[in-house]
Amino acid sequence: MIWSQKTREELLACRDQAAAELEAYRAQSLKLDLTRGKPSAEQLNLSSGMLGVITHADDCFSESGLDCRNYGILDGLPETKQLFADLLGIKPERIIVAGNSSLNLMFDTVVRCMLFGVRGGYEPWGRQGRIKFLCPSPGYDRHFAICRSLGIEMIPIPMTPEGPDMKQVRMHVCSDPSVKGIWCVPKFSNPEGVTYSDAVVEELASLRPAAPDFRIFWDNAYAVHELYDEEVPLADIFALAEENGTVDNIFYFASTSKISFPGSGVAIMAASENNIHQIKPILSTQTIGFDKINQMRHVKYFGDADGIHAHMRRHAAVLRPKFDAVLDILEAELGGLGIADWTSPRGGYFISLNTMDDCARRVYRLAKSVGVALTEAGATYPYGCDPRDRNLRIAPSFPTLPEITAATKVLCTCVKLASAEKLLEE
Amino acid sequence: MIWSQKTREELLACRDQAAAELEAYRAQSLKLDLTRGKPSAEQLNLSSGMLGVITHADDCFSESGLDCRNYGILDGLPETKQLFADLLGIKPERIIVAGNSSLNLMFDTVVRCMLFGVRGGYEPWGRQGRIKFLCPSPGYDRHFAICRSLGIEMIPIPMTPEGPDMKQVRMHVCSDPSVKGIWCVPKFSNPEGVTYSDAVVEELASLRPAAPDFRIFWDNAYAVHELYDEEVPLADIFALAEENGTVDNIFYFASTSKISFPGSGVAIMAASENNIHQIKPILSTQTIGFDKINQMRHVKYFGDADGIHAHMRRHAAVLRPKFDAVLDILEAELGGLGIADWTSPRGGYFISLNTMDDCARRVYRLAKSVGVALTEAGATYPYGCDPRDRNLRIAPSFPTLPEITAATKVLCTCVKLASAEKLLEE
Repeated sequence: MIWSQKTREELLACRDQAAAELEAYRAQSLKLDLTRGKPSAEQLNLSSGMLGVITHADDCFSESGLDCRNYGILDGLPETKQLFADLLGIKPERIIVAGNSSLNLMFDTVVRCMLFGVRGGYEPWGRQGRIKFLCPSPGYDRHFAICRSLGIEMIPIPMTPEGPDMKQVRMHVCSDPSVKGIWCVPKFSNPEGVTYSDAVVEELASLRPAAPDFRIFWDNAYAVHELYDEEVPLADIFALAEENGTVDNIFYFASTSKISFPGSGVAIMAASENNIHQIKPILSTQTIGFDKINQMRHVKYFGDADGIHAHMRRHAAVLRPKFDAVLDILEAELGGLGIADWTSPRGGYFISLNTMDDCARRVYRLAKSVGVALTEAGATYPYGCDPRDRNLRIAPSFPTLPEITAATKVLCTCVKLASAEKLLEE
Repeated sequence: MIWSQKTREELLACRDQAAAELEAYRAQSLKLDLTRGKPSAEQLNLSSGMLGVITHADDCFSESGLDCRNYGILDGLPETKQLFADLLGIKPERIIVAGNSSLNLMFDTVVRCMLFGVRGGYEPWGRQGRIKFLCPSPGYDRHFAICRSLGIEMIPIPMTPEGPDMKQVRMHVCSDPSVKGIWCVPKFSNPEGVTYSDAVVEELASLRPAAPDFRIFWDNAYAVHELYDEEVPLADIFALAEENGTVDNIFYFASTSKISFPGSGVAIMAASENNIHQIKPILSTQTIGFDKINQMRHVKYFGDADGIHAHMRRHAAVLRPKFDAVLDILEAELGGLGIADWTSPRGGYFISLNTMDDCARRVYRLAKSVGVALTEAGATYPYGCDPRDRNLRIAPSFPTLPEITAATKVLCTCVKLASAEKLLEE
């Protein structure tokens, strides 16, 4: 029965029952954590073999004879470029293989735009007064943190099941030359697990920005991170941009953080030849080169793109039961009550839960009060401010199945309590 | 006999002999390279054992139980901090252990100052109009490249055998608030191999800068890189700065690039607690964390500071004969002629050669014409401009002993030819 149709007496009973359940949880002194998209030890163990593929000096030579241990090569080993090229369908000459973190590459890329501008001799963003980024929301808090730290104004754009609301995107990008960028997690978006539809990718690729130095930050963090057997296709942004003559607008990022090791993976940036041509001299001022032994380790362990796909099926086998457990409990506890809805992602690292308006912070605090840590309410919005105060991000990857089960049950109780309180107020 | 005292006829004979020698070299189709401070394969092999210290998941846990493979810890593993703390005599809480490159840390640090300013709420350097760095010269070309790319004006400061000319340093730093920094390679400086005297370090530590946001960039790249048995001491800049109340002025950098592997080492930044407190939140926007498995690899392989010192003696045993060969040939070929002088470094990676004024570029080109690559003349000065056109940097580490011997003989011939030409012009 939809709770909004309940009588006051019935709601009071719901509230009291949820409150009683919460007290019972409190008595258990729980310490559970659904906060961050962190692989579990079981997942990390899937890559243990990678630790043993380079143990001698002889293992450190590239096909071309280059000694990976020494200085040399700014933009990545050719074979590592090829591995990512095959995996992501990007020309190798558009790829820079870097260190362990795509976040670092994204931060550095925004910083480069602030201080040096983008190719074409445009004024550095940092000298153009107030500039803005579009932030499809809910979204990834660390993207928003980059903008916030650099004083870039953030404009939230609503997410739809197909991707960002392109009407709003177009309106801002095509009319306002101070809009310099948009953050996109185009596949299994953080936190909703949305994969942008072909139409949305096509529209993004065909944007005619008011700013000649506008860039799409394409953070393909979950490019091969399917949870179920069916592959979820994502349109090829570079191909579409090529057709539309906008290829310089794309800055593409990916990493193996959730393929091999989160702290010790390999990250890439990809961009048009024009962009790479502008970026490399600046990058060569920043570093002589990245860790090529680790790049080689990834090539030797995975072999080729098929090797990574096979590896990702093993990750999925570990992750799937955890996602299924969360979804089953949400459905069993909250299904049909009209007080919450949630996503059923086909990949990625998160489930996004929307409570009734004005309830997410209350749920976050209630859960915290009984020992269940959730990502802070609001974190998925620019400035930490969810205008409807309803979005919560659930990250099921790191805890064990029993922990996830327990934590999700607590979460459901908190949603019920907050919802009953809210309905009683009205 | 001093060449300046030779008759015109004698000089013509010298010139012709050198020219004839050079033609003989040309006939050999040499391909020799004395350009960059790159360890040789023999040196890299000294660290081969490091490749095998982490081969299983069990090897990835820190003393505290932290799983190095996963996310967690922004500023470095405690045991890696301790290793650098013991090695360099710095409090561990002042250290951030990062990725593979101190150059990257230095670039990022200057960039952070440009965009965020230093601690204390000062205006970011990038918003203060024209700012300047002091550049003790000859110096490290990549330091100068950072300033140049960011539009920071460079003021060359002459080097003395004790370090930078402190009279000039003091004059600029204490009178000009647009002077924001100074680049220092305080031990075995690049390229001269000068180690700053205690008096110079003390003077640097006691500077009262006109700019409240002035910083000393202390690039201790060759902290433990002695070539001979005697240890060359360097005064403790942090201790002296502490005594002088200037500890916030110090940004300290070091790495294992020339201890373990140049492309796959571990770099650190060290700074006062106040500075670290300001830097860490910005760093946490840039990255979730650095490669902790590689940090652990260094701890497991070296064990402790003594382990590194023992390792460096093995590097010295490989490098010493190469430095000695260069020095012996320089002395045999150019000693007593009054046309060149050079340094006899006790450590580091370079020998600095000064020709007669206006001859360095000519020597560089002559050597290149017969297949011997030298670091480009001028590279050791800001803007690539050596005002006296006399400094050449010799990097003996990478080539084999026969290659170095051959290349240095060619170099001496080129110096003789250029000097004879120069003296004949006068």
